Amino acid sequence: MLNQNFIDMCGQKSVIRMLSAYGSERAKEIGYENVFDYSLGNPSVPAPESFTQEMIRLLQENDPVSLHRYSPSLGIDSVREAVADSLNNRFDMSYEKKDIFMVSGAAGAIAHAARAVTVPGDEILTFAPFFPEYMPYISATGAVLKVVPADISTFQINFDSFIDMLNDKVMAILINTPNNPSGIVYSTETIDKLAMILAEKEEEFGHPIYLISDEPYREIVFDGVDSPFIAAHYNNTITCYSFSKSLSLPGERIGYIAVNPACEDSSLLVDMFGQISRGIGHNCPPSIIQLAVSKSLYDTADLSVYETNKNLLYTELTKMGFEIVEPGGTFYMFPKALEADAVAFSDKAKALDLLLVPSDTFGVKGHFRISYCIPTEKVERSIPVFQKLADMYI
Amino acid sequence: MLNQNFIDMCGQKSVIRMLSAYGSERAKEIGYENVFDYSLGNPSVPAPESFTQEMIRLLQENDPVSLHRYSPSLGIDSVREAVADSLNNRFDMSYEKKDIFMVSGAAGAIAHAARAVTVPGDEILTFAPFFPEYMPYISATGAVLKVVPADISTFQINFDSFIDMLNDKVMAILINTPNNPSGIVYSTETIDKLAMILAEKEEEFGHPIYLISDEPYREIVFDGVDSPFIAAHYNNTITCYSFSKSLSLPGERIGYIAVNPACEDSSLLVDMFGQISRGIGHNCPPSIIQLAVSKSLYDTADLSVYETNKNLLYTELTKMGFEIVEPGGTFYMFPKALEADAVAFSDKAKALDLLLVPSDTFGVKGHFRISYCIPTEKVERSIPVFQKLADMYI
Repeated sequence: MLNQNFIDMCGQKSVIRMLSAYGSERAKEIGYENVFDYSLGNPSVPAPESFTQEMIRLLQENDPVSLHRYSPSLGIDSVREAVADSLNNRFDMSYEKKDIFMVSGAAGAIAHAARAVTVPGDEILTFAPFFPEYMPYISATGAVLKVVPADISTFQINFDSFIDMLNDKVMAILINTPNNPSGIVYSTETIDKLAMILAEKEEEFGHPIYLISDEPYREIVFDGVDSPFIAAHYNNTITCYSFSKSLSLPGERIGYIAVNPACEDSSLLVDMFGQISRGIGHNCPPSIIQLAVSKSLYDTADLSVYETNKNLLYTELTKMGFEIVEPGGTFYMFPKALEADAVAFSDKAKALDLLLVPSDTFGVKGHFRISYCIPTEKVERSIPVFQKLADMYI
Repeated sequence: MLNQNFIDMCGQKSVIRMLSAYGSERAKEIGYENVFDYSLGNPSVPAPESFTQEMIRLLQENDPVSLHRYSPSLGIDSVREAVADSLNNRFDMSYEKKDIFMVSGAAGAIAHAARAVTVPGDEILTFAPFFPEYMPYISATGAVLKVVPADISTFQINFDSFIDMLNDKVMAILINTPNNPSGIVYSTETIDKLAMILAEKEEEFGHPIYLISDEPYREIVFDGVDSPFIAAHYNNTITCYSFSKSLSLPGERIGYIAVNPACEDSSLLVDMFGQISRGIGHNCPPSIIQLAVSKSLYDTADLSVYETNKNLLYTELTKMGFEIVEPGGTFYMFPKALEADAVAFSDKAKALDLLLVPSDTFGVKGHFRISYCIPTEKVERSIPVFQKLADMYI
């Protein structure tokens, strides 16, 4: 009859999505301006004009038959080449067209990468705090996602726990830096230490351990923060990128996988991604969107508002007594809650129409996530509400 | 280490794609106008102006933040509603928004439907001749696709073989009408007989047997041909639609699944599709493409060229002695080859720069597929080449 796995998944709704849906309903009751909705990571700044103009140009100047034709299954050649060039120019790498696979966002990229490098029963490790949608992506492949507990003083990597958990069934490590939900950027020191441990364990276990690097926030790094390009530090890196945040195009589902040419079986991997897409019937991202983003590879939306919001919130909340590891990028912040039960804390905030996501879903207790991709004026108006919340704990 | 399943798939290249790639290479040598490439089903007529203009309007008149935001995971509400309305208006059905799931083309739709209604080891039946990509779609779900032999005199359904193969492990039947590669449209009589058999067997087996109806060619039906709307004839129908052919948008990856509201577990199915998308990390089709097609639901590209080409080819090839079941729609034709070995026949054609796909890949021996989605003047110029080919068999 019906497949029970998917029926069960229907019952596991995302806490973030549910809070966001509550926010939309509440806004209808009391007005959008009165709900301080920090739940969803939906970019608040417009896509760059270069993207919009290129889309219009493609539609106005091209023969529709040729514009809208099937994309080759690994992506449009000129687009893959342009992506490789942009990575080489920006990060001093040596990608070629053959190393790039166009995909509909980082979610699909991660799911493809995980599917390619594991068989059912293999393990993938990730680090708390982590994006909870990793669970469905990995479990759908048949592999098992295990979560290394957080180092809550820095939100860098908890290496002691990591080494304990790194056994020979682990085929991949899934990292996300700049990180959702902590906003933390892994330092060069962290990445080099990770790379060193992985290289040692590859030798010991006799098989590659791929580093699946989820990088949708790569372009949102704040002033003065060290943000290494991961693949430059570890050969067996599969980079999963999305244009959702950098170009403010979350609904257009466009990204790529870049396989480090020095990676074990690199050419095989890209072909395998094509076969994975074929099997799920999803083939390529839309041709016109591929073509348009290829002209905005050196551009971003105006991302400065996120740093403005971060500075404002970090300064004011710290003054109120919140303990926060200062974000180095993204549009997230992950302060300690003012009581041990993050859900109870978030419920108190919700009663003030301040929507904060409790941390449990991210694999850490007693914290909460703020998604500050909202207008700065609204952040400013939310400060007294945070104060009211803090005052409840005096 | 790497997942061998996907490595193996890399070796199973599509015969159609390989022939098409040969055609492109050959065109570079002897000129595009001298290669009669009937290999690929890529629409040859432009998308309707209404689609292009709506895309431009969306880009020019909308706030980019709102235009490019995340789509809800089942599709944009207004789009799902418009799709339901258009089906109701055109086919006298009673779909609602809740019954429609937006998906990136019929391929994804079929894979989702198959995944939802089977568990690994279950069977799905389809009818030869069939689109060979069904194999990877179904085998990736863990279910087994079994092919009912063709009725080569009509290319309607071979009911005797079908009834023999219909056992209690069969959870779904996958049909494609108008059909790729035969061009045949299943008659009302065929569909009603199929529906009657399925209803009886559901009773006998005690579980639903879903009819997964792959309908990308629904709008390409020739003058006077009876083309029933499948879901109106069988309640447990899951309709898989793509705009690739009707709007000439194959590269833009947009379609939908419509679950008959009278279908068993209909509301559960749509939610399950959302979870399947979530697990593979592919979420929704792009927001802007969803919005744009929703304004072209009553429109098509100018599809008349396909009927013109069909008439020309059918008349001329029949005169030459080819045996052909006359197509009722699509842009395909599936004549009997002039020797038993379809590959040898297609090779002889290839030597004349006439590219015809041998039938073996479609589950039938001794035939070939002509994809006549090419300009009519080229079809005309190809007639003497077909004659030359036929003359080799006198």
